[in-house]
Amino acid sequence: MNYAIGIDVGGTNTDIGLVREDGRIVDKLNLKTNEYYDAELYISDMAAKIKELMGRNQVTDIQGIGIGAPNGNTYTGSIDKAPNLNFKGQVKLAEMMRGHIDTKVVVSNDANAAAVGEMVYGGAKNLDHFITFTLGTGVGSGIIIDRKLVLGSTSTAGELGHSIIIMGGRKCGCGRCGCLETYTSAGGIRRTALELMEQNPLYNGVLRNIAPENLTSKMVGDAANAGDPIGLQTFENVGTILGVAMANAVTFSAPQAIFLMGGPVHAGEVLMRPLRKAFNENLLNIYEDTVDIRVSELADNEVAILGAAALINM
Amino acid sequence: MNYAIGIDVGGTNTDIGLVREDGRIVDKLNLKTNEYYDAELYISDMAAKIKELMGRNQVTDIQGIGIGAPNGNTYTGSIDKAPNLNFKGQVKLAEMMRGHIDTKVVVSNDANAAAVGEMVYGGAKNLDHFITFTLGTGVGSGIIIDRKLVLGSTSTAGELGHSIIIMGGRKCGCGRCGCLETYTSAGGIRRTALELMEQNPLYNGVLRNIAPENLTSKMVGDAANAGDPIGLQTFENVGTILGVAMANAVTFSAPQAIFLMGGPVHAGEVLMRPLRKAFNENLLNIYEDTVDIRVSELADNEVAILGAAALINM
Repeated sequence: MNYAIGIDVGGTNTDIGLVREDGRIVDKLNLKTNEYYDAELYISDMAAKIKELMGRNQVTDIQGIGIGAPNGNTYTGSIDKAPNLNFKGQVKLAEMMRGHIDTKVVVSNDANAAAVGEMVYGGAKNLDHFITFTLGTGVGSGIIIDRKLVLGSTSTAGELGHSIIIMGGRKCGCGRCGCLETYTSAGGIRRTALELMEQNPLYNGVLRNIAPENLTSKMVGDAANAGDPIGLQTFENVGTILGVAMANAVTFSAPQAIFLMGGPVHAGEVLMRPLRKAFNENLLNIYEDTVDIRVSELADNEVAILGAAALINM
Repeated sequence: MNYAIGIDVGGTNTDIGLVREDGRIVDKLNLKTNEYYDAELYISDMAAKIKELMGRNQVTDIQGIGIGAPNGNTYTGSIDKAPNLNFKGQVKLAEMMRGHIDTKVVVSNDANAAAVGEMVYGGAKNLDHFITFTLGTGVGSGIIIDRKLVLGSTSTAGELGHSIIIMGGRKCGCGRCGCLETYTSAGGIRRTALELMEQNPLYNGVLRNIAPENLTSKMVGDAANAGDPIGLQTFENVGTILGVAMANAVTFSAPQAIFLMGGPVHAGEVLMRPLRKAFNENLLNIYEDTVDIRVSELADNEVAILGAAALINM
């Protein structure tokens, strides 16, 4: 069996996993990202953890190290000005890591890594062309064409969460208006539920009893699945907008499948039913019956490490 | 010098050009597409014209034959159910042509061919990543990533004219609503001008004197350039919508440039000024200063043949 290391750099935690070629995470260790202010020390400790993982699992050789990180740049192997990390400017992750461990090191952002993870370990093993959408704090996406990750000229291609789906629509954290993620991220779902409650003063269901600041997209999904009208209408709206966005994405790269991942996807059919309906209604006829809408085959709590490990196959 | 044949299959005419590797169309001949009902005869006559072109220009060897055709499929080398052609079903153009002339034959649709033409003979000779938008009867597009044309799983990728830019917007010929081409094709421009005139009953300018059925996008552009308020407002709207659509396209493939081609582009700054403004205002900040908006370097009356000839480099 061959092994790779997959590292998920988050603002709080850095998860380091030893991944077997069949996609099993054999073992993992953790660093507290936010306790580090010195990138050299951070990467040196990361390398020590990798060696510890290899040692205690009797793995003497790895095929490479993949790192998924906010603003991870595949061309430069660096993290560039990530807003949630203590390290300022450009951190040359790949180069610094190779100073400790002489192997292939590939860096990318987490949404791109998730797409490569789906290709290597998930439901896209036999697909040449597909797109992934990750619904979470934001909406991430990764685009695979001819089994290659689309990086574009900047390594930052595949930001479909920031394509404008409604001109002049909701204000987005990025400063612009109408981005897909303002409607279909976890926060967007929350926002839709709150708007709908405001528009329906007579609504007196389960979501009304939750203080707005405590409302989560999971609660809205649970309510929808229990038949709550605001919950259902929220996912109807979210699914419809996402369905149109996916139909638009098809006009770009004519994929064989689009994969959905992330927490809100667990709402299940209350999301998927309106999504499929809007997708089919808005799909250009030449693409009819050529694209599957699917749920990721990677577990939410494993996709970050698996995606990162998969990067070494790029 | 090396030579290629570029063939532009239109509903009325088929133009056949002998193209020198520096992008000069040395000579051309023509067939009346709509006089043919038998594909075998059509292609046999096409091959005869190619031989005639080569003979009368003392060209003994060509590098290949590229054919741009409605619904041209690169994977199968065929035209599939093109609505404006007399030939029904699938016409296996490449295979049939090779029966007459033993050389590389590549088929694609005209918008894709235009993108490859820009890469081989036009302004994208040194670019790895770019997108072209052709404004005409419809809005065509071609996407180049890593100097390769994006074909997707169906060979029909790059239909950005049918991405939905305004949900629930104008009815499109494709049966859906809000497609980019309903706003930014020649017909879309005409439609906007007519709508604006209806909304402004006091307007008494030059466009008011033209019978609606005679109004063309060129007239609207000429009016705009002469300072006519309806003309200017039309291009303001068209440019704004196209600018947003281009900013959206950037989130997909992070291109170095986007090229515009087609008749309406000759309206010049009345189109380009609002387009650039909307593009810059709606471009995600990570792409700032990484994308040029440019006008195609290929002449309108040459792009079809040059694009087709360029296909043999794929």
